[in-house]
Amino acid sequence: MKDFTFQNPTRIHFGRNALDQLPAEVKRYGQRILMVYGGGSIKRTGVYDAVTEKLQAAQAQVWELSGVQPNPRLSLVRQGIQLCREHQIQLVLAVGGGSAIDTAKAIVNGACYDGDVWDLYEGKGSNNTALPLGVVLTIPAAGSEMSRSSVITREEDWCKRGRNAYTNFPTFSILNPEYTYTLPPFQTACGIVDIMAHMMERYFTMEEHVELTDRLIEGALVTVINNAPIVMEKPDDYDARAEITWAGALAHNTLLETGRVGDWASHKLEHELSALYDVAHGAGLAVVFPAWMKFVLPRGGATKLAQFAQRVLAVPQDFGSEEEIAAEGIRRLEGFYQSLGLATTLTGMGIDDSRIPEMAARAVALVGGKLGGFVPLTAEMAEDIYRLAL
Amino acid sequence: MKDFTFQNPTRIHFGRNALDQLPAEVKRYGQRILMVYGGGSIKRTGVYDAVTEKLQAAQAQVWELSGVQPNPRLSLVRQGIQLCREHQIQLVLAVGGGSAIDTAKAIVNGACYDGDVWDLYEGKGSNNTALPLGVVLTIPAAGSEMSRSSVITREEDWCKRGRNAYTNFPTFSILNPEYTYTLPPFQTACGIVDIMAHMMERYFTMEEHVELTDRLIEGALVTVINNAPIVMEKPDDYDARAEITWAGALAHNTLLETGRVGDWASHKLEHELSALYDVAHGAGLAVVFPAWMKFVLPRGGATKLAQFAQRVLAVPQDFGSEEEIAAEGIRRLEGFYQSLGLATTLTGMGIDDSRIPEMAARAVALVGGKLGGFVPLTAEMAEDIYRLAL
Repeated sequence: MKDFTFQNPTRIHFGRNALDQLPAEVKRYGQRILMVYGGGSIKRTGVYDAVTEKLQAAQAQVWELSGVQPNPRLSLVRQGIQLCREHQIQLVLAVGGGSAIDTAKAIVNGACYDGDVWDLYEGKGSNNTALPLGVVLTIPAAGSEMSRSSVITREEDWCKRGRNAYTNFPTFSILNPEYTYTLPPFQTACGIVDIMAHMMERYFTMEEHVELTDRLIEGALVTVINNAPIVMEKPDDYDARAEITWAGALAHNTLLETGRVGDWASHKLEHELSALYDVAHGAGLAVVFPAWMKFVLPRGGATKLAQFAQRVLAVPQDFGSEEEIAAEGIRRLEGFYQSLGLATTLTGMGIDDSRIPEMAARAVALVGGKLGGFVPLTAEMAEDIYRLAL
Repeated sequence: MKDFTFQNPTRIHFGRNALDQLPAEVKRYGQRILMVYGGGSIKRTGVYDAVTEKLQAAQAQVWELSGVQPNPRLSLVRQGIQLCREHQIQLVLAVGGGSAIDTAKAIVNGACYDGDVWDLYEGKGSNNTALPLGVVLTIPAAGSEMSRSSVITREEDWCKRGRNAYTNFPTFSILNPEYTYTLPPFQTACGIVDIMAHMMERYFTMEEHVELTDRLIEGALVTVINNAPIVMEKPDDYDARAEITWAGALAHNTLLETGRVGDWASHKLEHELSALYDVAHGAGLAVVFPAWMKFVLPRGGATKLAQFAQRVLAVPQDFGSEEEIAAEGIRRLEGFYQSLGLATTLTGMGIDDSRIPEMAARAVALVGGKLGGFVPLTAEMAEDIYRLAL
């Protein structure tokens, strides 16, 4: 187990009545609010009205920044920072999923940074403070509601960059599983894949003696896998939605990485995929993660993959050799993703091999060395993984 | 799953070099420090010297309050509050286990409360702020290093009272598993029992659809059970000590109770035991918890006890009926406690039945109604449990 410092200050209000906490939060931080959201979905589902009503009850003065898209864009962040400065915003409230939250994170940090906000994502600048950030979550997936991560895409060159910072932790997050009832099945499925990927990136580490966090991750993965078919079948099953929503927040809140170093190669390989093809992040991960597993299995990954197969996917101990158990785990994971209606190959997503070298080169160039911690990857190895995904 | 609000602000510095973070923490909060600790053990083990050296490096001015005893006493708390006020203390630093930390929690809260600190424990007063509280942990057991709980005994009448409050969360806690190498085997064993009890009190709930937290608790319990024999055999096994130390903090940090209501009857029954007989809390729990399980098994507890038996203690599904599986789980738990060198009966601790009615009456009177949430207990039922423990 590695030495670590852990702190997660985000206050979570969870449940059917969680939004009732919003007026008290507004009173804490101030009534000049910038509300950040995507398109019309929160208006169709009633979440916009519910939030607005609570803000009115809190006598808040609200500015709106809408138009957040998947793989959220830098230009909108810049608009938001401008609004914060013009109107002395006291609290930024993201209403939506990871894209709205990541946009809002960039805004609350950028508003407290003198230079260009993109510096923060390129590691060329830093800030010690940020504006207070509230979240009303509608999509359990990115885990941004309780994480220190934010990913933004600069649309000029589709350059996608992530930033981890303490000032990225939301001040508070409101999680009502009912808000996820109206998600289209594809989006529910992508969210499930993303949540599991956040846990699996941390699970696959070469760090030894991490039994506690291994077992916590395994328990959370099993819970997501058990509840996924329920929500796919019955989108308004509160209890199953609640299990997945809370698992989604814990998946990425840094607790499950204490004492270990995650891998994150699959995420980076997927980032390049979604930057070039604008595919949904979860859908991309359903393709990339199993391919990554197949690649690392014969390269030192068998033991951990076999543990994963047995404890998470219930592959029996007498199934075969360690390698066979591990391979069966990968097959079961692919089968699970397919049961959610997702493709598990690039071809199945309509993507061919034409840009594989470009994506591999970009993914590896980004980290300035080898990619990932479990099996460090060169650009050639990254290409192999994309090809295994065809 | 119940609605909940969750926030745990404690900053954890964990590992062999965790104490290196102390000077930076002192710089954050101030150099006028009250150090709270027990007797000579931290001097014998070198922890006192190590802490003092870091405090000197931070140019701190240190006052000392030593003499903390197990089942920590109100009179020492009052002395500490007096010292804080006299010397404008800026940071209270507890060095030790739960007793030192709970004493320090009472001090940092009491110092910011105008009335008598015991009011806070009797629910007759409240405070919104507390002095910053740092912890250097030497005994993984109480979980106080990352919890909002504090338990203090008023020695005039041996009245033991717990208080849960947001202001009880330590500001930071330093957890170096090496500091636990020198614990006597009995204390290591008691700590393991206490850690498991914190998880089991939350596990045994009648709340349904709590799969995620159930599985997180199960994973943490299995980890403790797997690593316990290692530390009993080889006290300086860093990795096993680290697993137990981190599990001990997470056991009580409120994450594992999200969405559910714990039982806590066993803790309250044990508190009366240790208040009257001054036994170690963990030793008392090793006696009370199995007796409580035997009592609730035929009263609606079989299903959850059987789940516990199967998932935590590996009782096979084909062992027998649900009741038989549950009963085997209790036997295995008792066997595990005995393997740590602990008694699992009152008689084995040298305690007879003479004060059972008194303890039962006190435990139930304290809660002003029935005791516990899993199977609510009357005083008569509490007596039955103590008798089952004979």
